[in-house]
Amino acid sequence: MCGIVGIVDAGGVSFPLYYALYALQHRGQESAGISTFEGTTLYTHKGQGLVAEVFNKHILQGLPGTAGIGHVRYPTTGSKIPENVQPFKFHYQGLDLAIAHNGNLVNTAELREEYERRGQIFCTTTDTEIIASVIADALRTSKSMEDAVRLCMRRLRGSYAVVALVNGVVYAFRDPLGIKPLCIGRIDHGYIVASESVGIDALDGTFVRDVRPGELVCIDKDGLSSVQVATANRTAHCIFEYIYFARADSIIDGTLVYDVRRKIGQDLYDASPIEADIACPVPDSGIAYAAGYAERSGTPFVEGLMKNRYMGRTFIMPTQQQRERAVRIKLNTVRGNLKDKRVVLIDDSIVRGTTSRRIVNMIRDAGASEIHLRVGSPPIIAPCYLGVDMPTRTELIASGQDVEAVCGSVGATSLAYIPLEDLVEAIGCDERNLCTGCLTGCYPVEINGEKSCHCVVDYVAGTHQSDLSAFRGEKERTA
Amino acid sequence: MCGIVGIVDAGGVSFPLYYALYALQHRGQESAGISTFEGTTLYTHKGQGLVAEVFNKHILQGLPGTAGIGHVRYPTTGSKIPENVQPFKFHYQGLDLAIAHNGNLVNTAELREEYERRGQIFCTTTDTEIIASVIADALRTSKSMEDAVRLCMRRLRGSYAVVALVNGVVYAFRDPLGIKPLCIGRIDHGYIVASESVGIDALDGTFVRDVRPGELVCIDKDGLSSVQVATANRTAHCIFEYIYFARADSIIDGTLVYDVRRKIGQDLYDASPIEADIACPVPDSGIAYAAGYAERSGTPFVEGLMKNRYMGRTFIMPTQQQRERAVRIKLNTVRGNLKDKRVVLIDDSIVRGTTSRRIVNMIRDAGASEIHLRVGSPPIIAPCYLGVDMPTRTELIASGQDVEAVCGSVGATSLAYIPLEDLVEAIGCDERNLCTGCLTGCYPVEINGEKSCHCVVDYVAGTHQSDLSAFRGEKERTA
Amino acid sequence: MCGIVGIVDAGGVSFPLYYALYALQHRGQESAGISTFEGTTLYTHKGQGLVAEVFNKHILQGLPGTAGIGHVRYPTTGSKIPENVQPFKFHYQGLDLAIAHNGNLVNTAELREEYERRGQIFCTTTDTEIIASVIADALRTSKSMEDAVRLCMRRLRGSYAVVALVNGVVYAFRDPLGIKPLCIGRIDHGYIVASESVGIDALDGTFVRDVRPGELVCIDKDGLSSVQVATANRTAHCIFEYIYFARADSIIDGTLVYDVRRKIGQDLYDASPIEADIACPVPDSGIAYAAGYAERSGTPFVEGLMKNRYMGRTFIMPTQQQRERAVRIKLNTVRGNLKDKRVVLIDDSIVRGTTSRRIVNMIRDAGASEIHLRVGSPPIIAPCYLGVDMPTRTELIASGQDVEAVCGSVGATSLAYIPLEDLVEAIGCDERNLCTGCLTGCYPVEINGEKSCHCVVDYVAGTHQSDLSAFRGEKERTA
Amino acid sequence: MCGIVGIVDAGGVSFPLYYALYALQHRGQESAGISTFEGTTLYTHKGQGLVAEVFNKHILQGLPGTAGIGHVRYPTTGSKIPENVQPFKFHYQGLDLAIAHNGNLVNTAELREEYERRGQIFCTTTDTEIIASVIADALRTSKSMEDAVRLCMRRLRGSYAVVALVNGVVYAFRDPLGIKPLCIGRIDHGYIVASESVGIDALDGTFVRDVRPGELVCIDKDGLSSVQVATANRTAHCIFEYIYFARADSIIDGTLVYDVRRKIGQDLYDASPIEADIACPVPDSGIAYAAGYAERSGTPFVEGLMKNRYMGRTFIMPTQQQRERAVRIKLNTVRGNLKDKRVVLIDDSIVRGTTSRRIVNMIRDAGASEIHLRVGSPPIIAPCYLGVDMPTRTELIASGQDVEAVCGSVGATSLAYIPLEDLVEAIGCDERNLCTGCLTGCYPVEINGEKSCHCVVDYVAGTHQSDLSAFRGEKERTA
Repeated sequence: MCGIVGIVDAGGVSFPLYYALYALQHRGQESAGISTFEGTTLYTHKGQGLVAEVFNKHILQGLPGTAGIGHVRYPTTGSKIPENVQPFKFHYQGLDLAIAHNGNLVNTAELREEYERRGQIFCTTTDTEIIASVIADALRTSKSMEDAVRLCMRRLRGSYAVVALVNGVVYAFRDPLGIKPLCIGRIDHGYIVASESVGIDALDGTFVRDVRPGELVCIDKDGLSSVQVATANRTAHCIFEYIYFARADSIIDGTLVYDVRRKIGQDLYDASPIEADIACPVPDSGIAYAAGYAERSGTPFVEGLMKNRYMGRTFIMPTQQQRERAVRIKLNTVRGNLKDKRVVLIDDSIVRGTTSRRIVNMIRDAGASEIHLRVGSPPIIAPCYLGVDMPTRTELIASGQDVEAVCGSVGATSLAYIPLEDLVEAIGCDERNLCTGCLTGCYPVEINGEKSCHCVVDYVAGTHQSDLSAFRGEKERTA
Repeated sequence: MCGIVGIVDAGGVSFPLYYALYALQHRGQESAGISTFEGTTLYTHKGQGLVAEVFNKHILQGLPGTAGIGHVRYPTTGSKIPENVQPFKFHYQGLDLAIAHNGNLVNTAELREEYERRGQIFCTTTDTEIIASVIADALRTSKSMEDAVRLCMRRLRGSYAVVALVNGVVYAFRDPLGIKPLCIGRIDHGYIVASESVGIDALDGTFVRDVRPGELVCIDKDGLSSVQVATANRTAHCIFEYIYFARADSIIDGTLVYDVRRKIGQDLYDASPIEADIACPVPDSGIAYAAGYAERSGTPFVEGLMKNRYMGRTFIMPTQQQRERAVRIKLNTVRGNLKDKRVVLIDDSIVRGTTSRRIVNMIRDAGASEIHLRVGSPPIIAPCYLGVDMPTRTELIASGQDVEAVCGSVGATSLAYIPLEDLVEAIGCDERNLCTGCLTGCYPVEINGEKSCHCVVDYVAGTHQSDLSAFRGEKERTA
Repeated sequence: MCGIVGIVDAGGVSFPLYYALYALQHRGQESAGISTFEGTTLYTHKGQGLVAEVFNKHILQGLPGTAGIGHVRYPTTGSKIPENVQPFKFHYQGLDLAIAHNGNLVNTAELREEYERRGQIFCTTTDTEIIASVIADALRTSKSMEDAVRLCMRRLRGSYAVVALVNGVVYAFRDPLGIKPLCIGRIDHGYIVASESVGIDALDGTFVRDVRPGELVCIDKDGLSSVQVATANRTAHCIFEYIYFARADSIIDGTLVYDVRRKIGQDLYDASPIEADIACPVPDSGIAYAAGYAERSGTPFVEGLMKNRYMGRTFIMPTQQQRERAVRIKLNTVRGNLKDKRVVLIDDSIVRGTTSRRIVNMIRDAGASEIHLRVGSPPIIAPCYLGVDMPTRTELIASGQDVEAVCGSVGATSLAYIPLEDLVEAIGCDERNLCTGCLTGCYPVEINGEKSCHCVVDYVAGTHQSDLSAFRGEKERTA
Repeated sequence: MCGIVGIVDAGGVSFPLYYALYALQHRGQESAGISTFEGTTLYTHKGQGLVAEVFNKHILQGLPGTAGIGHVRYPTTGSKIPENVQPFKFHYQGLDLAIAHNGNLVNTAELREEYERRGQIFCTTTDTEIIASVIADALRTSKSMEDAVRLCMRRLRGSYAVVALVNGVVYAFRDPLGIKPLCIGRIDHGYIVASESVGIDALDGTFVRDVRPGELVCIDKDGLSSVQVATANRTAHCIFEYIYFARADSIIDGTLVYDVRRKIGQDLYDASPIEADIACPVPDSGIAYAAGYAERSGTPFVEGLMKNRYMGRTFIMPTQQQRERAVRIKLNTVRGNLKDKRVVLIDDSIVRGTTSRRIVNMIRDAGASEIHLRVGSPPIIAPCYLGVDMPTRTELIASGQDVEAVCGSVGATSLAYIPLEDLVEAIGCDERNLCTGCLTGCYPVEINGEKSCHCVVDYVAGTHQSDLSAFRGEKERTA
């Protein structure tokens, strides 16, 4: 899981990219990077840590140009290797290119092997370098980015929302199923593409629309143009973006995330009503759910858990015992709000169950008489191969156990999940257009050893273009 | 405004002090420091920045000993001078002492002048060094810390909650009116004193009681003992701790802060009922107020403003224009929740009015049809001389303007403050026992050019003790 | 110009690599890096700055394994790009390889173009990545490093001394003409290869021999083995190593550098005797020359210039005027030793002439009556394409000017260079076996637009080996 | 041992102070600091490490003003405590003062006790704070810095060269015996005082004269004025400055240090002639001695030991074995110059003997047939109480052992020290005017348990001046 952004703005892009990455920081705290282009030179600065740690005023002032891309990276295995930090910069036939990627490919190994048979060496262990190689492969015979992206759509299997910076032009594309989000905004003197609409808000920009699945968008100084490179018989938007990953104030593929969560909260009461003294969210993501629950049920919204606002990645927990204790520093119970109370505890999801168990224990220690756990997603029963960092099946508490068993395991008085149909209805689109792999075990792309749903992708026949910046199809000019 | 902590624990104190300071981080983000004592040596590490920035595992492992004190400092004028970072360490007659202070003295200039007349030089510009000089003054003739603190109580005018580390013993005392909070907790192998009870929670400790106004508490390896050094005819607990400064999950002088704020929220509806679509908090401190308001009014609790969780002190805003824009990165509106809605906006207080005006504008821009501002404190009409960093009278929006004028100035549809009597009732103590200086202009200590309420302090006649660690009065032994 | 080292030692290699790089620090101060191998994992740490700045105890302890390579880099154009810092790490067919290089290729552009035509992308702008690609190219069809190095010798044109780390084995090879130095030493529990013998001294090791031009050396836990991959009809050892680049205490291709310089100093008097009061070196490299001169001439060796020992790369010189002045901080005159004295000033070489002019001026300002400049190399008249960072022809003061003109330009009373035949004799080898490109304009490899001497390289027919660690030819077992 | 500097220059002082400290870096590598004054504000930046590590361009640009002082500190016990880093800044009666000190007081304990009896607390453990207290003591009754310094001269016992910054005026004074050096230079738009003349050279300034023992110099925007505060019947210049501590290119109290060392080298041959193949210095301080020796004896000056120029304080030596080995990285033998040679090894002094023993061993291991050690100072038999960091008597190899025993202990073939009378003659002043405490055990100030020579100080009766910047006596106006 990562956040990406691309901006073309006549007034300079390094500060806007920085602000937009700040707004997308929740999508990745492991590393951050920005590439900009001026004249004939690509400028890049990237490093491990939060956006605010990686950049300062002097660094941003040293990134000139009116076009650029940025990336924040989620901590996953192997991501601490410095060369894996994005944007990935490469040189090819006199061009300096930078590329950044959100998503996960499932045919990385095959592609890597194929390229290595030709003699290609790899500097990183990222999918991004594979995507760069596919792009270079196309550019070898054609100078058209449209062809390059068409080849990507044919060759890459998995989820990918990509921004690329080539010769002062920002290209952005999204896989044919639109698994990972990407949207377009208009800003002062140009355009922005960002993983979530909050990136546009950060620049006081105007939301235009989502990038369409299979679409390639091109932003240069003259404005925005687009071409539909592939079409599919359905979409497969990641359902977990709505449940947990996206910010509540983002609009993802047409839907306000807060609205989805608040509706789920209402539905949770309708589906499993219970009499209680307080409706208590697990902060921060549980708040919207709990607000909806309180509204429908009439149970007062009261915080029983307070999150420490200064908890950074750098918090020190040398021993296991101290680490256990340190949970109290991160999340404190408000005893006065919990003592002798019947508590409805509302969380977005249960993955391993470890955190839920710990929180239920804390609330019980604080004196709650009943703890009714309500969960804003159906049981998670299968792993994600498409970009959400989830454990294997055996570590998923709901994989192979029924709700009652899970309830016992986490120690709650009662437990209810939202039914899938209610969740889908709250999102407001056809279930067929969502990726529900983690909830159903059925995935929209072929994955070895897993069931897959039927998706048909049609690659739009392209006229090979001879130059990097020309595009067919709709055009939208910068005001 | 600062946070202080003192710990004696047989298992070592540097990590516990670090955790407790983490929990008190909201009381000061400018600098942090820890002093510990082992053998005959005082160890100190301090620096500018957040607790997590100033300390790491190696630094904490280099602070040995079973007794120590810590401090976090609020950014105020002059506080960036490195030598002003606390704990303040000094040498006197073979002793190495460390001292940390929360509060503000109003007779600093007189005391400084008096000491300078004797030839004393000062290394810092802090009140803390003045307190250290008063302590040394008493230790000169008596070796008793009780006498030293008695002299402090006689000489110092203003607010002061102090922890001192002398020869492996932690001393803690609070001014005779108890203006700034300080409480006692029992932990695994010792005791803790901290500005707020969340410091105790962070160590999974048990809240024992508040340090009494005018009391000196002494913690050593044998346990905790105490002596009442001065008594007064009233207390003067800072009312702003309840309104804004303290964490909602803290218990301050016997009262859960969350409870106060939730009750105020309820009272705000009772005092100024209005029909609306949503009850929207200004995050984060407005949440408890808004929860109470929603509960009493039946108006749904819905967030219309989302705070960026990654906003650090290091966020870069080079130009004024960028700074204006950057507000959107810090606080984003959830348009879908606000568009065409009648909004009750609930905040804890209005100081200059600048922030309120900006937020009201943002909500209006997001399409709200009505914005009814409800405020959890009465109008702030006078400055604070006793430790809260507030502007001068002329900068206070409510100083010299009535509510209607303020409402017009911030651009709200309607505006209502909580009446002082409701606030006092929500806190649950006699108004006479609170410092309401900023709300009434009447202060519990004499301040040049200001009105003061009548406070009488009686200094308990002490038998001069000949050694630093012996104490009369109640004793509590470490289990 | 760079320094490289490779070590296999049963007792661990990170600290030995660090010490050896310390001894080679004069070969490059821009960046430093170490790669080690343990189990199946390659560990790398590298960064910009001096060895002491890039590494610390904790970092070295985090580089496990008994085989590794290291690199220090000389500041050249473009070298500040972080991804160019060596060792260069790459992935190929399941292998993690690291490679480090000293030298300069002259056919980089052709090779890069050829690889790009196949679809290869490049992550850096270094020759090292080209070498890595050639190696991968060979490994594609053969699993033999011998074949890979043979392909390097056929394809690469220019100077290259290389160390590579593959699967816990260190490979080292030197171009067929042996342009850049590389030598072998035996250490406690293994072997070391290093650019100069001082790297071996640093580990208290025993110098074994130089790596032969065209030889591939392989060091693993069983000892050292070697194979002659190519042979040439001559060598082309860089003459500038003896004049300036190498440390005086190094033995390069069989000759002690100090000895060469001291002999040149003696010859300088024989060739251009002059009566003077003091023989004054330009520190530090001029000292050995001046010692030889004083010894032969009887003129007292007296320092008239003192170098500041604390001059780091970080010295701040904001304005041009300050920069001029700052020369005095770097190099101070000892007025008492120079006033009214006839001075023989002895330096290793004159490149642009700027430094010589400044030093002559300083010595004149200090009151010297005569300044006779004696130079330890012949006039430098042509650029270096093979690894020494030198300016273009037009910037070389001796290119197109005779000695008299140069003397006038630098402001000396008299000027004499060492004749080339004396220099060659001091080195003690046939001129045909040295690269004298910068002194003669005739280069040992073909370079566009330059004269080249006739060198014939014969590639030893190899039996393709099927495994990476097996080697034909001589073997030397670790004791 | 420390280095101090004070500058008043109309063109700004932070960069000049930085350059001058760079030139004085050899006097202290533990910490560095600069204070400047502009308007009514004192600006200070200081920290642990080398000048180049503590300061950068931005920091220097943040130190405005046309008057300032600087300090570099030698690593001694306790000096790592951050608050001990100089300049020491203090506040007194509305003044912000900064002070920096080179030297060592012998009556610190008495003075501290006396001040503590009055109630004074101390923030540091430095002599500098004591000096500040004495100054404040005088300023209490008189506003005259002349009186303040007169009180210093009466009360302080030991060595002290001091610079102070008060209200934009730099004051500099030296103890009545002139133990530590301090000299005056004229620069572009003002004056400089510095521990050594190389500080003046660094700014391309002109040496004016030494500050006289017992003199107070005052530099302000109008120029330099001076008053003789105390006179003594002799001086006691530290002899070790000439032997080891000062830079060879400095002029100390009228004598070029290089000249002293070169003469001693000549005398060493005259006093103990020996036939040998090479005269080999122990770098770096031995070079001037060896040059003199080679000149007189005709033995060729040849380096047998090469010092690594990149050896920083940060060099890592985790284990004792590695530490032993690491000596080879710091100091390498040039085997080719030593093998089968009769070596005269020339060093400045022998303190503990450990280093000499190690070096003799290294040279023997390199194959030298004879090693004749010649030492530029007489045997060191007593500790220094006046500012040179020396071990106790029992650790001094020459304390209680004759030359033969020392020779056997360090393993040399022969050993000769320079006789004291030759040393004194080389310095060119009366022995009575030097402090030879470490060589004779007789000290120029009273020290408990040690012999002292008879020094009489007369305090010049001063007319009390009513303002800080007015001075009687000679005046020198800025051009």
